[in-house]
Amino acid sequence: MPPTRTTPARRGRPGYDLESLLSVAVKVFNERGYEATSMEDLSRKLGITKSAIYHHVASKDELLRIAVDRALDGLFEAAAETTVMSGKAIDRLEFLVRRSVHVLVDRLPFVTLLLRVRGNTKAERAALARRREFDRLVTELVLQAEAEGDIRPDVDPAVTARLLFGLVNSLTEWYRPRGGMGADALADAVCKIAFDGLRQPAGD
Amino acid sequence: MPPTRTTPARRGRPGYDLESLLSVAVKVFNERGYEATSMEDLSRKLGITKSAIYHHVASKDELLRIAVDRALDGLFEAAAETTVMSGKAIDRLEFLVRRSVHVLVDRLPFVTLLLRVRGNTKAERAALARRREFDRLVTELVLQAEAEGDIRPDVDPAVTARLLFGLVNSLTEWYRPRGGMGADALADAVCKIAFDGLRQPAGD
Repeated sequence: MPPTRTTPARRGRPGYDLESLLSVAVKVFNERGYEATSMEDLSRKLGITKSAIYHHVASKDELLRIAVDRALDGLFEAAAETTVMSGKAIDRLEFLVRRSVHVLVDRLPFVTLLLRVRGNTKAERAALARRREFDRLVTELVLQAEAEGDIRPDVDPAVTARLLFGLVNSLTEWYRPRGGMGADALADAVCKIAFDGLRQPAGD
Repeated sequence: MPPTRTTPARRGRPGYDLESLLSVAVKVFNERGYEATSMEDLSRKLGITKSAIYHHVASKDELLRIAVDRALDGLFEAAAETTVMSGKAIDRLEFLVRRSVHVLVDRLPFVTLLLRVRGNTKAERAALARRREFDRLVTELVLQAEAEGDIRPDVDPAVTARLLFGLVNSLTEWYRPRGGMGADALADAVCKIAFDGLRQPAGD
């Protein structure tokens, strides 16, 4: 039976495995835009033929799917952990924010690509659907924390959830791991601002 | 003397003025990506010839420049107001955040386009330079507010400035004026979360 072209883990010819192909493709997608990048562009950038790329993936859209799933899988693993944690919802929410910052730092190109997905192709629409599912999980935690009296009730919980992860996601716009602050320090800064605000409390 | 092609305010043929051309172009850029959109695509979308587009603008890059300047001009007008205000830096910073939310709501497609600019063309690089200048003004306000004891000193001021405007900019990802909350309510929510945090203070 011939191997199918849709198995992401399949290894390619010597010299280029799926991992390095993916890494270059994601870099080009982020620089030039996914829509604007053709398989021809990727082949030139990689210095291999298009058929060598098709040896690994069936299409440009499959490359996108594998790439954004790297980001989404990390986020959903973090969300899954919060469901088995005990404790207050606000603490689980803070845990999820911290873990999401770590996912973002560890998988920055993949998360950056995910956040730029527009929904023009099948893989893009699947990614948007998973993002909405993640947003729903965050909103549930916010609702629960508000019911427990730990989150300010004067902002709509769905808006709070969106602002909170808007803040996390905005890190992709400027954060660069090399030479920058570490993931823990970044997560601390995000949590301080998001949970307690940038204002110095009176009397401190 | 023939009219030059670089005058943005110049009116075109009956049926399509620069304003409606710009509005359609920005919509297409935001949906498909600036790089991925050709003048041919715009001409098809508008139902006019390419030369009718060139009647208004010299190039695709000029369209981009005019569009992102709509966003940037609004932000710089707001920043200019803070320089003539009296009062504490933290209040001027909050004013700037509120005004920026209003600019974003009023000029959403232009701000969205601005935030997706990558720097591949002359107009894109000019936009990025203006964005950096705006970030510098925000960081100065944060530094001043911290020196006045009004901003928590345990987060680096440049990071605080980036998180704050990262939060504002993230609104473009989900906020839709039609049917959504108004600009004032949105600005309130952003300022509550950013300045005072989402946590309900103990004892409230």
